[in-house]
Amino acid sequence: MSLELRSQIYEELSSFDFIDPHTHIDALKPASETLADILGYHYYTELAHSAGMSREAIEEADLDPKEKVERLVSNLEPLQNTIQYSWFIEMAQEFFGFQDDVINRDNWEALYNLASDHMSKSDWADQVLKKSRLKGVFLTNDFDDPLDGFDTNIYIPCLRTDDLVFHLGKPEVRKRFVESTGQEAGTTESVRAGTLQLFRTFVAKNARACAISLPPHFAPKKISDAAADQALAELASKGVEASDDAKATAACFTFWTLAEHCREFKLPFDLMIGVNRSVYSAGVYQGQDLYDSRVSLIQYRELFNAFTDVTFPVSVLASVTNQELTSYSWIFPNVVTNGHWWYSNTPTFIEHDAAARLEAVPQTKQIGYYSDMYKLEFALPKFNMYKRVLAKILAERFVIGRGWSEERAVKLGTAVLRDNTELIFGR
Amino acid sequence: MSLELRSQIYEELSSFDFIDPHTHIDALKPASETLADILGYHYYTELAHSAGMSREAIEEADLDPKEKVERLVSNLEPLQNTIQYSWFIEMAQEFFGFQDDVINRDNWEALYNLASDHMSKSDWADQVLKKSRLKGVFLTNDFDDPLDGFDTNIYIPCLRTDDLVFHLGKPEVRKRFVESTGQEAGTTESVRAGTLQLFRTFVAKNARACAISLPPHFAPKKISDAAADQALAELASKGVEASDDAKATAACFTFWTLAEHCREFKLPFDLMIGVNRSVYSAGVYQGQDLYDSRVSLIQYRELFNAFTDVTFPVSVLASVTNQELTSYSWIFPNVVTNGHWWYSNTPTFIEHDAAARLEAVPQTKQIGYYSDMYKLEFALPKFNMYKRVLAKILAERFVIGRGWSEERAVKLGTAVLRDNTELIFGR
Amino acid sequence: MSLELRSQIYEELSSFDFIDPHTHIDALKPASETLADILGYHYYTELAHSAGMSREAIEEADLDPKEKVERLVSNLEPLQNTIQYSWFIEMAQEFFGFQDDVINRDNWEALYNLASDHMSKSDWADQVLKKSRLKGVFLTNDFDDPLDGFDTNIYIPCLRTDDLVFHLGKPEVRKRFVESTGQEAGTTESVRAGTLQLFRTFVAKNARACAISLPPHFAPKKISDAAADQALAELASKGVEASDDAKATAACFTFWTLAEHCREFKLPFDLMIGVNRSVYSAGVYQGQDLYDSRVSLIQYRELFNAFTDVTFPVSVLASVTNQELTSYSWIFPNVVTNGHWWYSNTPTFIEHDAAARLEAVPQTKQIGYYSDMYKLEFALPKFNMYKRVLAKILAERFVIGRGWSEERAVKLGTAVLRDNTELIFGR
Repeated sequence: MSLELRSQIYEELSSFDFIDPHTHIDALKPASETLADILGYHYYTELAHSAGMSREAIEEADLDPKEKVERLVSNLEPLQNTIQYSWFIEMAQEFFGFQDDVINRDNWEALYNLASDHMSKSDWADQVLKKSRLKGVFLTNDFDDPLDGFDTNIYIPCLRTDDLVFHLGKPEVRKRFVESTGQEAGTTESVRAGTLQLFRTFVAKNARACAISLPPHFAPKKISDAAADQALAELASKGVEASDDAKATAACFTFWTLAEHCREFKLPFDLMIGVNRSVYSAGVYQGQDLYDSRVSLIQYRELFNAFTDVTFPVSVLASVTNQELTSYSWIFPNVVTNGHWWYSNTPTFIEHDAAARLEAVPQTKQIGYYSDMYKLEFALPKFNMYKRVLAKILAERFVIGRGWSEERAVKLGTAVLRDNTELIFGR
Repeated sequence: MSLELRSQIYEELSSFDFIDPHTHIDALKPASETLADILGYHYYTELAHSAGMSREAIEEADLDPKEKVERLVSNLEPLQNTIQYSWFIEMAQEFFGFQDDVINRDNWEALYNLASDHMSKSDWADQVLKKSRLKGVFLTNDFDDPLDGFDTNIYIPCLRTDDLVFHLGKPEVRKRFVESTGQEAGTTESVRAGTLQLFRTFVAKNARACAISLPPHFAPKKISDAAADQALAELASKGVEASDDAKATAACFTFWTLAEHCREFKLPFDLMIGVNRSVYSAGVYQGQDLYDSRVSLIQYRELFNAFTDVTFPVSVLASVTNQELTSYSWIFPNVVTNGHWWYSNTPTFIEHDAAARLEAVPQTKQIGYYSDMYKLEFALPKFNMYKRVLAKILAERFVIGRGWSEERAVKLGTAVLRDNTELIFGR
Repeated sequence: MSLELRSQIYEELSSFDFIDPHTHIDALKPASETLADILGYHYYTELAHSAGMSREAIEEADLDPKEKVERLVSNLEPLQNTIQYSWFIEMAQEFFGFQDDVINRDNWEALYNLASDHMSKSDWADQVLKKSRLKGVFLTNDFDDPLDGFDTNIYIPCLRTDDLVFHLGKPEVRKRFVESTGQEAGTTESVRAGTLQLFRTFVAKNARACAISLPPHFAPKKISDAAADQALAELASKGVEASDDAKATAACFTFWTLAEHCREFKLPFDLMIGVNRSVYSAGVYQGQDLYDSRVSLIQYRELFNAFTDVTFPVSVLASVTNQELTSYSWIFPNVVTNGHWWYSNTPTFIEHDAAARLEAVPQTKQIGYYSDMYKLEFALPKFNMYKRVLAKILAERFVIGRGWSEERAVKLGTAVLRDNTELIFGR
């Protein structure tokens, strides 16, 4: 009974269009051009490297896409157990009619060519969107992204602010800031004015969120203008050689300023909490970051209290922080649970984490899932994975465990999968 | 097979009377008078507030109970997924024959009136006890509670000591201490004598436990009398303006003194570890506390070693601390697992946490559950929730997973649900 | 369907011989001589003590083995729920044909005598190995173990290094170091030369790993020779009275030196992370250690980056660290997941932890399980427990959840249970 029920609920959760509320899609090149764009995704390169493939073999300059795929395919066997591998197979099956369960030296080339045929169609991206039932995807835009040349109702801008908060001492960031805002970023006044300008530009282009990823030690607090001015002056004069104190003070100031703009522009502020960058510095591109799971949302106490009128969709990197996220969302009106991020984006963690949220956070305050994808093809297998887990939870814990009707369970699933994204990001 | 088995075990776990070893029942007003007493429980007000209802609408002065219920009912839809909401529906169904699955503007008033009729019966509290199969409930008594006017065999006193340990600098606490003990609390001698007096009074009134809730950073240690006298003198002279050091020293001293009295009077000392108070200070009444899950039982190492002859039933606020609790109870003879507290009191966490304990902690050292309720009606749905999870664990992990007979599994369930409470709290 | 499938997969996982990659077997006395060797295992003595039995009754000097068993049996009822108790019953049933589900005053003596008969057979150890399908077991050898008198192809040496890293100030350790290496351990040069000598000796005796258990606060880093020489000199002159700083510096230096030797000799370096020793100092032998689960693999960042050519099979003591282990193994080529250690070696934690690893760590980088046993009889029930959990995960999450064939699932199970041990420890 349980398996049939899971299957039915899954089908119903697959019967409607929805928006993906966080991706890294390049709106000008949203879909893949060859299978190398798929297998070049860091989940495959980092796992292949972890299993023994050298970084040099993966990242050789000017490597032909087909050669790159051949090399990677030859190194995927150790990954066949991973859920990431299953995403690849599901994409191959769903988009290209691939018939096998594994990819290997015998079958990769036919798939490569078939994929290239499909991907070369001028409407490929739209085909992928349609098959994936996506009616829109949120982007992750650099603050100086021109946001031109695409339909912002489908490719929805989102202002990513890591550079502004954590890298304002870097000359290239300062240069980009001046060029995009006309401000020097050397004083509280200029940072406020410059970031205000960015919000105006983004909101005019249909931006729906401000977003940032945060290291485990970060604990935002309000900084006085005097202290911030001093820190910003030090960054202006010393750049990356500025003291850690000055960097930290400037980070807090800029972060707080962004939250103030979110309030003014009624933009949700996505917080992605817990990542340490470049922990494995010899790793492949985007395969170097890890974390220290000893982080607490208590570090955000001052922020959540100060900005009761800003919605914070919060993602946590480690499943051990999920109960805090659940509890903080249960208590703070402005804290919303947001997806299953990165190292927690595997079925066992999703199941444990989503079940806890579904039992204790108001159903209107949960954004079930986002794909975090770089190429459109990934939404389908990632959301399908989530839908399978969600269907399992709804079947086992709500219909069987609590006596709900299937219809009611599907309605809850639809809320976290579709409705809340539209509700919270104010479309 | 598994579902039928779960159901059978659940029925058997529902076939006996038991004691609820931790509640906040007011023995002089144990049951609800209107549905406002039910929906006024912080679980509903804080969740309604989290989902968008203003604190003012909930806490308006002199609000008529019926009006309060109407307001809350209008704001409960976002909570329909929560387990807390299911408690409400189960109470309505079990106590008042409510037929629906949700409460809304159409059906609330009839329920309200029906509930008021039942609640106005003079023996309502006894009816609730009987239907809930409760033969006794532990109270949470302020240290100066007169403990008069009720049957202490049913409403069993428990000395709650947060005020003594953490708020001895407050003038009103000092005043209550003097009035109830005749001691000024200004010296180690007077604190020892006064708290001793409290233990005598409580034990004479059938008290079965001393209890306290503790913030994550608390790490008890033995304080010399000289240092404690100095700290207590500072508290006496400066009150809440005393230094953090003095407060911390006095807290450690008083806490240690309480443990000494527990030893002398053979009272278990309930430790509820991990809460930060007033994290969301604009929240509704009792809906402001949260936590930092970075806490460890290693902080209690000195205590557990010093008081090998005091039993410590320990509750932890976060599920991530549950493995430590399991391990410390497995090693320390004086540490006992106690219930599923507050933010961990939802099915997914209970299942994970209880399963771990049932596999590794001696069956005599586990107090399965307490309701933590403020009104008697809540024991029924809360214990039923626990019994369902317990039945699931026993069915899946013991009968199916380990080949136990159903009878043996029920016996284990009965021990953690009923027998151990009587064993450990020495009835 | 799911139960039958679990059962079939379990059977298939039980159909081949394998190596146990971490035990505390004494190669000269690998099997038990009486039931007292079984029930004297710390899991039973510490749990019996936790449930009320005095340490004195357990550890009385010159206690007759039969008397010891009688005493323990009289105190095992509170433990009947534990998985450890189930190991005992399974051993009794599998090795001696015991027919009951519990051991008690009525049936213990017959079992004791029967066990003694079996155990007195000259080939008992080989019988146990065969029945347990063990073709080899890794040992845990003190650095000065002569490694003589046994077949190192079955009893495979492993250099345990806790003493060298954490206890080099102790006179007896220094004495053993001199005696076994000819070096005084007073300088970086002598520590390097002495430990190099140990590696040569161990590798010549077929050693397959270097191993160490580490406290939660340990964070290895490279120490300059100047600083290390100073610290080692202080240890040489002051012994255990040396400063904490000197001890910590010497520990880092020695640890780093061991990693350098592992690189040279291509030996994996087993890291068992997270134990605090003697937390409950009045506990029974080996039943005193606990932990602080606030530990992070970020503490090993410098090590993992410095020794990309050394394989680190990592065990973590607490399940809350398992996601970090999973993620670090997914990113770092030289980090491998290793078993389910001690307080995490119970079915609920194994299930959660193993499922997470199987979904996200390359299948070649997971050592599924080790028994950690002191006597050979324990491998059978411990590995059976693991195989049952593994079969459950493979059935529910891979065959049912992901549509794998049973054959494919069994192949994955075989890799983590058998193949990877041979692959990683280079047999």
